[in-house]
Amino acid sequence: MNWEDNVRKVVPYVAGEQPKEQDVIKLNTNECPYPPAPGVAAAIHGFDCDKLRKYPDTDASLLVHALARRHGLSDRQVFVGVGSDDVLAMSFLTFFHSGKPVLFPDITYSFYDVWADLYGIPYQRQPLDDNFCIRKEDYFRENGGIVIANPNAPTGVAVPQSGLEEIIRANPDSVVIIDEAYVDFGGESCVPLIEKYDNLLVVQTFSKSRSMAGMRIGYAMGNEKIIGYLNDVKNSVNSYTMSGVSIAAGAASVADETYFQDTVAKVVATRERVRGELEKLGFVCTDARTNFLFASHRTIPAREIFEALRAEKIYVRFWDKPRISDWMRISIGTDEEMDRVIAFLGDYLKK
Amino acid sequence: MNWEDNVRKVVPYVAGEQPKEQDVIKLNTNECPYPPAPGVAAAIHGFDCDKLRKYPDTDASLLVHALARRHGLSDRQVFVGVGSDDVLAMSFLTFFHSGKPVLFPDITYSFYDVWADLYGIPYQRQPLDDNFCIRKEDYFRENGGIVIANPNAPTGVAVPQSGLEEIIRANPDSVVIIDEAYVDFGGESCVPLIEKYDNLLVVQTFSKSRSMAGMRIGYAMGNEKIIGYLNDVKNSVNSYTMSGVSIAAGAASVADETYFQDTVAKVVATRERVRGELEKLGFVCTDARTNFLFASHRTIPAREIFEALRAEKIYVRFWDKPRISDWMRISIGTDEEMDRVIAFLGDYLKK
Repeated sequence: MNWEDNVRKVVPYVAGEQPKEQDVIKLNTNECPYPPAPGVAAAIHGFDCDKLRKYPDTDASLLVHALARRHGLSDRQVFVGVGSDDVLAMSFLTFFHSGKPVLFPDITYSFYDVWADLYGIPYQRQPLDDNFCIRKEDYFRENGGIVIANPNAPTGVAVPQSGLEEIIRANPDSVVIIDEAYVDFGGESCVPLIEKYDNLLVVQTFSKSRSMAGMRIGYAMGNEKIIGYLNDVKNSVNSYTMSGVSIAAGAASVADETYFQDTVAKVVATRERVRGELEKLGFVCTDARTNFLFASHRTIPAREIFEALRAEKIYVRFWDKPRISDWMRISIGTDEEMDRVIAFLGDYLKK
Repeated sequence: MNWEDNVRKVVPYVAGEQPKEQDVIKLNTNECPYPPAPGVAAAIHGFDCDKLRKYPDTDASLLVHALARRHGLSDRQVFVGVGSDDVLAMSFLTFFHSGKPVLFPDITYSFYDVWADLYGIPYQRQPLDDNFCIRKEDYFRENGGIVIANPNAPTGVAVPQSGLEEIIRANPDSVVIIDEAYVDFGGESCVPLIEKYDNLLVVQTFSKSRSMAGMRIGYAMGNEKIIGYLNDVKNSVNSYTMSGVSIAAGAASVADETYFQDTVAKVVATRERVRGELEKLGFVCTDARTNFLFASHRTIPAREIFEALRAEKIYVRFWDKPRISDWMRISIGTDEEMDRVIAFLGDYLKK
């Protein structure tokens, strides 16, 4: 025997490639094509770096308070972390502790089963229907927790709040996590349900609609009790997860609601235009309410198109997995980038 | 029953206070009294914030490479995280997975038992001797892992590398973590043993000697295999823990070895001077090789002195715990701050 026999062995999540070559059209990790609000650069460039010698505010109060005001909540209803992955991982560790299986869709964010495996949490995948929609009845059985991405990834399909409310109401013994990473692009948020259901946790991120993937900020919203448990676990892992710079930059982003709304509107307008163009080229698209489209060509296999795009230095995402191997996920870039993609696909599909 | 019955309940670590009032002498969290290297501010103030829209480099290569070069290691022998607490928490989760008890001293960094409790890892505290020294024989028994802070906190006492080498060599079935948060202030590092022992993990931080507590950067060094396991677990929690700004700022700090050495030398010189002054005032101090002193007065109870200092807005650290309730931990501030502390104590002890 040696020490390696005692190591926790895991199969890590595989993120989309971050190609280091130049002149790439990168539509594979759902990043925003526009920069963060101008106030973010001002906050970072004006940061008093002498302050770095001290530990940051463990409560990240400035950022928590900005988010609480933005969402009409109290500070004690908001938890922040190092990207929504950090927030979700900590939520799995905190709330899915019963030994009963956690439920989530068969096609969804592929980090859920990785976290469950890491922490030894049993889980059962619930199959989406043929239109990639949740069947709410699947979530009315005994469980140790529920996590639903809404809008879902990589399908982009959104469930109305009322559908999720039934699931939340039916499960008072479980925490129900609604992962709203993409909600700003056209989903219906469950935040208004927080006052009504104390078993609801809503998670959002700065990585998509706030153009701050590189800053690593995510957050959870819920009643004070659920947020308190999450803070206890966070304070049992790392007293200070948010750097002083992240706190300042995040608060600056939240301060500029106009820029935020404009950025989201631009991405949504491009998405709708591109959807129309793709359909003209023989693609079927889901009704994606996200900053990406989920598209399948009527005749050409997704893998072939994916590889053709890649040869052209256009990176999109393709999974060789059951049920979605005919589909590609295409992040929405600038109008210029998307025009190049459409032009290339037009030529390619004519051949 | 309700969802609260299924929550992981923990007793969080309690960090030193971060007082929000002005005009405080803050000697309670071992922060450096000097700012980070000038290049750090330059890196932050010159950061291209348009880049934030993209995810950062998941490998934090720029920072990892700078650290590897600094320590004479390869990039694959270095792991970075959000402060050494993040690195240590992840190491507990990764390596202490056998079900056998993990060993650490009875008086040491009080996060070790918090992490063990959080992840359900059994542990046994090994009593330090009356001089707060490790008895190496205590670590020659069956165990599921070992973690030793060297120099230790809050005692400041350091063990020579040779003493630790015996422990590392005697435990090929366990990962031995040496937590070197304070090593730059006069301890003997175990980094040179990395090539010899593949069960050794050495953890260091930017929070003390690099004046960057507010930036949240810690790192681990070990052989490629042990670092690989750690990266697998990290990539099962959060693909991107280090923000683009942290990576740039951290690399800038490592680039300025002269500033680093000068800062450490100033802190050490102040520490030695203050130790002499405290001894003149009737204190006993350990041979602390850290950026703090551990001091006990021959006649006045530590709690009384702690409270008198606090009334004067001088924050030090005191624990009402067995064996150390006669002691205070005093971080080393600027010479001016320490002169005010000494002057106050001189007056106070005369009364």
